[in-house]
Amino acid sequence: MTVNLEAPDKLLPVRGVRLAACASGIKKKPITDLVLIELSNDANCSAVFTQNRFRAAPVIIAEKNLAISSPKLLMINSGNANAGTGETGFNDAVTTCEYAATALGCDTNQVLPFSTGVIGESLPTRCFEEALPGLVDALETDAWLTAAQGIMTTDTVAKGFSKQFEIDGVTVTLTGIAKGSGMIKPNMATMLSYIATDANIHRGLLSDCLKSSVELSFNSITVDGDTSTNDSCVLIATGQSGAAEINTKDHRYNTFMIALNEAMKYLAQAIVRDAEGVTKFVEVKVLNAQSYQDAKTVAYTVAHSPLVKTALFASDPNWGRILAAVGRAEIDSLDIDKLAIYLDDVCIVSKGGRDKSYIETAGQQVMSKAEILITIDLSAGHDHASVWTSDLSYDYVKINAEYRT
Amino acid sequence: MTVNLEAPDKLLPVRGVRLAACASGIKKKPITDLVLIELSNDANCSAVFTQNRFRAAPVIIAEKNLAISSPKLLMINSGNANAGTGETGFNDAVTTCEYAATALGCDTNQVLPFSTGVIGESLPTRCFEEALPGLVDALETDAWLTAAQGIMTTDTVAKGFSKQFEIDGVTVTLTGIAKGSGMIKPNMATMLSYIATDANIHRGLLSDCLKSSVELSFNSITVDGDTSTNDSCVLIATGQSGAAEINTKDHRYNTFMIALNEAMKYLAQAIVRDAEGVTKFVEVKVLNAQSYQDAKTVAYTVAHSPLVKTALFASDPNWGRILAAVGRAEIDSLDIDKLAIYLDDVCIVSKGGRDKSYIETAGQQVMSKAEILITIDLSAGHDHASVWTSDLSYDYVKINAEYRT
Repeated sequence: MTVNLEAPDKLLPVRGVRLAACASGIKKKPITDLVLIELSNDANCSAVFTQNRFRAAPVIIAEKNLAISSPKLLMINSGNANAGTGETGFNDAVTTCEYAATALGCDTNQVLPFSTGVIGESLPTRCFEEALPGLVDALETDAWLTAAQGIMTTDTVAKGFSKQFEIDGVTVTLTGIAKGSGMIKPNMATMLSYIATDANIHRGLLSDCLKSSVELSFNSITVDGDTSTNDSCVLIATGQSGAAEINTKDHRYNTFMIALNEAMKYLAQAIVRDAEGVTKFVEVKVLNAQSYQDAKTVAYTVAHSPLVKTALFASDPNWGRILAAVGRAEIDSLDIDKLAIYLDDVCIVSKGGRDKSYIETAGQQVMSKAEILITIDLSAGHDHASVWTSDLSYDYVKINAEYRT
Repeated sequence: MTVNLEAPDKLLPVRGVRLAACASGIKKKPITDLVLIELSNDANCSAVFTQNRFRAAPVIIAEKNLAISSPKLLMINSGNANAGTGETGFNDAVTTCEYAATALGCDTNQVLPFSTGVIGESLPTRCFEEALPGLVDALETDAWLTAAQGIMTTDTVAKGFSKQFEIDGVTVTLTGIAKGSGMIKPNMATMLSYIATDANIHRGLLSDCLKSSVELSFNSITVDGDTSTNDSCVLIATGQSGAAEINTKDHRYNTFMIALNEAMKYLAQAIVRDAEGVTKFVEVKVLNAQSYQDAKTVAYTVAHSPLVKTALFASDPNWGRILAAVGRAEIDSLDIDKLAIYLDDVCIVSKGGRDKSYIETAGQQVMSKAEILITIDLSAGHDHASVWTSDLSYDYVKINAEYRT
């Protein structure tokens, strides 16, 4: 199931971006598993990649190619992560880039490869060799939804977001897609996400836009605390809307960032709403911390606690587990006598103990909802942070126990 | 179920220690929930307590009383943790100590109170008031097994260990009990454990014995990563064996430490063997790390990964999940090209990738066992550490989703 999430009906084309997807045979079932995203010559592109030390071969190559070239083609396969595959995997990734470059007619280092799926199995390069020429011929602007479907693994619905807004009176489009459902605790990036706009953003500024927006979206979600080997998030600006270039942090930048933050937060939350085995969508909000980092540490400690997550699954207002998780969070200081905890608007803990007005039925009512806000007030400073997470259900165990069978 | 664990048939009395247990009504079902452990006048006592910032009221009082008095009585209740109960909970704990002191005829600060069970509910002090006089009358030396049963909560079997050995030709006895099954990632202590010996150990040295042994036992296990608010571990030395005093780290100290380490490791592992929903008992051993702390960080990261734990449950040799967990461990440096991973004797990863000789059936065979050793060789230094953990099963979710219903 998902929590208040459906696949988008339609995703808007972005001028300067063409896409195509097909079932190339990488996945055992005949479903879409290979996606191309072609960028116009003048497009700027920025990306962030997983901080897991085991970076998959395609991640290493994509980061290198992005540094030395102007990317023309993003090539994404699902069904095989090409991670933990050693030198063979590295060579396989290079080979598939060569196939793509030949098919499109560009340099090999203008291809950014991305892979997601099972770790530790060899990439079937033959599937790429056979599919790529036809796939290049199929490139079109109105294929974002097909692409969103093509990058799915354990996802149950395709995830996408589109928005149009104006910069100085010129209409600009922003469209993004993402995938991810398990092994989700992104660190600098998500599982896989591709966001494109026809706004005109100076290359030097584009990476600022991406990093600042990632911190409050993909880097603020968790399903299981397991950072993937293949996380990548790419932001593309083609400039083809005709809007003025954004080259400094002015009002145009702010207008763009509002839309980008909305898109990335939507996509990041969509991953949690479709988390493996999810029955609840939960925001853990920490208020009045000494620092943003403290707030985030406390929020993640609560969001990762298996005891909190099973209580959420059971709709059980077992606030002792939240309190115990806050108590073990690795922050420098915590004044337990000032702590307050709320489930939605219901105050359950004040001054470090059960609030005198709290009655179990009020907590029970909140916990039985599909979307729950847990607010933790540390009364220690002025910083705050939110983390979004899912519960821990029978289906989470089932999905992950049966993943490879 | 448990993994290769049965309740002990018999636990040996320790001269200078008397015990008693009864069903006082704290638990809803009429089962044993209140335990007394009386110490002889000349006994030395040392303890370590949870590092969770939310320490339950009894933990705070026990630590204070231990610092200012020679304890005469340990009073342990199960069924109610008296944690998150604020000032009322603190006063309740003091009241129960007063009841116990009156019944036994000692100072209130010679009573060390311990509680375990549900967090956030008021302690029913009336149960203590009514039960304590009779319980003091029932104190006897041969009641360790009854005491082990009386401190259980979600434990399915009582946990105890006894051993006799010689110090300079004099027979010494060591007996310990422990409880714990969930909210287990002790930090400086376990859920609850009481170990007594009639060896004669200088008070100043006793705390060294305890801390050094705890680090390699209770502080090396995890079920769910959730450090409890009530963890406490107490070591008692009555000196009544007649063996010479141990007051320095000589051969007598070494003899004693071998027995103590065996007892505490046994009890700590017993908690994991009886973990909530356990079907596998797993040792994660990290070799050749730059520091002991690095080794332990990597071991805990793997042991806490929900994806690794569900793969263990499924008997699936999904080593990519182990590799991904190692890759996100928060240590300063990691040379992924040198990494090797073994399941028992089967090498699955060498030089950071799938070992050339590895075949899936060999990994499958190891994973289908009830006890599994995962060895991770970092090839970075000379330190090593082991952590013991359980898998993540349907029953883990069931037990924790239904805990309060």
